[in-house]
Amino acid sequence: MDRRNFIKSTAITTAGIGVLSSTELFAQTNGKIKIGFIGVGLRGRNHVQIALNRDDLEIVAVCDTQEESLAQCRKQFNAKGTKLPKEYTGGVDAYKKMLSNEKLDAVIIATPWQFHKNQAIDAMKAGLYVGCEVIAGLTLQDHWDIVKASEETGKPYMTLENVAFRRDVLAVLNMHRQGLFGELLHLEGGYQHDLREVLFNDGKAYYGHGVEYGPKAISEAQWRTQFNIDQDGDLYPTHGLGPIMQFADINKGNRFTHITSYSSKARGLAAYVNKVSPGHPNGKINYKNGDITQTMLQCANGETMLLTHDTHLPRPYSIGFRVQGTDGIWMDVAKGIHIEGKSKPHTWDSADEWVKKYDHPIWQKYEEVANGSGHGGMDWFVFNAFIQAVKQKVQTPIDVYDSVTMSAVFPLSTESIAKGNKTLEFPDFTKGKWKTKKNTFMLDDSGM
Amino acid sequence: MDRRNFIKSTAITTAGIGVLSSTELFAQTNGKIKIGFIGVGLRGRNHVQIALNRDDLEIVAVCDTQEESLAQCRKQFNAKGTKLPKEYTGGVDAYKKMLSNEKLDAVIIATPWQFHKNQAIDAMKAGLYVGCEVIAGLTLQDHWDIVKASEETGKPYMTLENVAFRRDVLAVLNMHRQGLFGELLHLEGGYQHDLREVLFNDGKAYYGHGVEYGPKAISEAQWRTQFNIDQDGDLYPTHGLGPIMQFADINKGNRFTHITSYSSKARGLAAYVNKVSPGHPNGKINYKNGDITQTMLQCANGETMLLTHDTHLPRPYSIGFRVQGTDGIWMDVAKGIHIEGKSKPHTWDSADEWVKKYDHPIWQKYEEVANGSGHGGMDWFVFNAFIQAVKQKVQTPIDVYDSVTMSAVFPLSTESIAKGNKTLEFPDFTKGKWKTKKNTFMLDDSGM
Repeated sequence: MDRRNFIKSTAITTAGIGVLSSTELFAQTNGKIKIGFIGVGLRGRNHVQIALNRDDLEIVAVCDTQEESLAQCRKQFNAKGTKLPKEYTGGVDAYKKMLSNEKLDAVIIATPWQFHKNQAIDAMKAGLYVGCEVIAGLTLQDHWDIVKASEETGKPYMTLENVAFRRDVLAVLNMHRQGLFGELLHLEGGYQHDLREVLFNDGKAYYGHGVEYGPKAISEAQWRTQFNIDQDGDLYPTHGLGPIMQFADINKGNRFTHITSYSSKARGLAAYVNKVSPGHPNGKINYKNGDITQTMLQCANGETMLLTHDTHLPRPYSIGFRVQGTDGIWMDVAKGIHIEGKSKPHTWDSADEWVKKYDHPIWQKYEEVANGSGHGGMDWFVFNAFIQAVKQKVQTPIDVYDSVTMSAVFPLSTESIAKGNKTLEFPDFTKGKWKTKKNTFMLDDSGM
Repeated sequence: MDRRNFIKSTAITTAGIGVLSSTELFAQTNGKIKIGFIGVGLRGRNHVQIALNRDDLEIVAVCDTQEESLAQCRKQFNAKGTKLPKEYTGGVDAYKKMLSNEKLDAVIIATPWQFHKNQAIDAMKAGLYVGCEVIAGLTLQDHWDIVKASEETGKPYMTLENVAFRRDVLAVLNMHRQGLFGELLHLEGGYQHDLREVLFNDGKAYYGHGVEYGPKAISEAQWRTQFNIDQDGDLYPTHGLGPIMQFADINKGNRFTHITSYSSKARGLAAYVNKVSPGHPNGKINYKNGDITQTMLQCANGETMLLTHDTHLPRPYSIGFRVQGTDGIWMDVAKGIHIEGKSKPHTWDSADEWVKKYDHPIWQKYEEVANGSGHGGMDWFVFNAFIQAVKQKVQTPIDVYDSVTMSAVFPLSTESIAKGNKTLEFPDFTKGKWKTKKNTFMLDDSGM
């Protein structure tokens, strides 16, 4: 399907699509692009696997401080019969050697959050595209520093926010762009995921055993749990906000103006430790991160958004999406859609049928290759979107402004809560460019 | 079932229940209590019907400014073969004559919101119990004035908040009191109800036709719609907040400390008029009330609450209840409950089964008499709760502090939004008494 037909077939005819010419979009680079990995823990290796399945790139080098992660990564290459990449290790600065020694087009960063900012800035300064796992930085200044580095180097920075590519999310975005919801008014999302078995383990198995974190644990519990001890805010806003930002054209004709956060007391993690291992000292820690954090956002064009962070409690997983306009509403918790004039009055339709009917063309086209890539296929889409931008030497579909906007809710929510639920002005990372930028997210098929 | 066994049977053994002695609770007055009605529109007549079905009270007088409402009310008495009440009419002050002429024990107020405060205060000053429909007053000062009148006269004031008595809500309250959710952390509620056919009609039928409001309309559209034109705030907070306040012991060992509201742009009502009657001038009105208003509340004991007001858009009805603690969660939108150790991990149980299992004893006892009373039976429970307090000369189960607390979100949300989503201190209407008051809501069976 070429780009013109693709757009026609999805009936997306009103949004601005003039920012990239077809020539630019489909100009292919010669040969394979060369990428390096900073961080090949569980998450990094998920991207490595997707990369190994592609024939348009070469993993030249990987970097990690832990031999266990590098060893697991080697197994992936060997299983695929692919030439092993050069390895950089020996300390948290090892990635700098990789950046100066290797000739790369892009890096994928999948390290603990506290390392993301410097690694990303150094990579952009080395002339590389950056695909960085979620949480761009820890402070608001970190986020501004990333914008500055991208603007000064001219290098795109893309947060690898995968939920923006989830099949139902893109189907509903498709519905929105075809006008089914009427004028958009309110959106909700969040990260409601019982992470207790991720935040604690026994130092041997990844999940399901033990109540250790930090040096006595492995994988994410080594570093992530400390944030739940130290910070009271929405630690993980991007899976909720990344997708709904695209619906509301944030940074593309719209922007956030105000933000306020509330958080409940923190009881879940200590309660968990006390249930699993009564008397363990980790049950006596004064965890600061409220069990439920909610954040309200006001948009310049009059829409409102609500984000929820809820990761310390027993509960079924839910992003809690809600998309609502003058003509209808989608709520994933209700598994329902209601569209005026099409649904029975005051009644939910099953969302499944609507999602199938409005399936996004990129999912129809790439379903087979995406399947099995992780998180229901959406990991393939986010990785592919980044790689296509690198190959075509164009802006990434989630640009540096989008990336820092969704991530900045972390420090902003923390500040709001620390100041007694104070309402804060949301910074305009685009410095006014939001007024003229056009939303082209998933309007085109960037190809394989 | 006597009170002791009632409490035992619901395993509610930890909450304080010492505020009323059994003697006080079950001291019956001699003969029938005498009540008057201020307002016999649709809502008032619903209460009249419940009252006519009881043999422990006499409706001595009714008051309304509209002959049509009085005529409909007469039909109710005639159909029941009950002696007609004395009627007061002729202007908005007619109720004052009723208060001075008649010997009453209590009044039921079901008039437009703007009349509630003065009518309630005058009734308390006349020595009567007041059962007032939701929305106690329009300004914060109105709410303080009601508290002052109740304290000075010693007369109880109860908001007739019916959803607090909904069968599933009381079943889940029962679960909470038995400790199923562990330590409570977060609650949600709201009023998400497509009211467009309530806010507009053709002046003939109550619902489903026409786009008129004000003098050209009948019933609620005569007066209620004007609030949607004039005010940007949560106009109807009590159905969401009344129930969840009881879970968190608000004003009884807990209180609200902070409140912040956000509202989306207002497009729904004009869009509705334009759909139903293109070109009608009511489609050009600048409605101020945002289509989605959300309010966050912080509690002194560390819980958070979220309220949603959503009445101008096509959508299925939902109060959006969520009750969440260290051990589990109930979400009515998901139709699910998850309790750690009892539910399959990461999976919703059907809420229906749990709600049946934990059905509140008062519903088991009074189900038959309540059925058919309106709103699934809960109208009978709220009316009965008020009448029992009048008969027994005790405090109403929803007291004046609870009543104004849930209603004050109307002016407070409006102020927060008008001041740029400013976070406000929530007033302590109890002036410190919340620290020692005990929550006895639905702990006892006040009998028939």
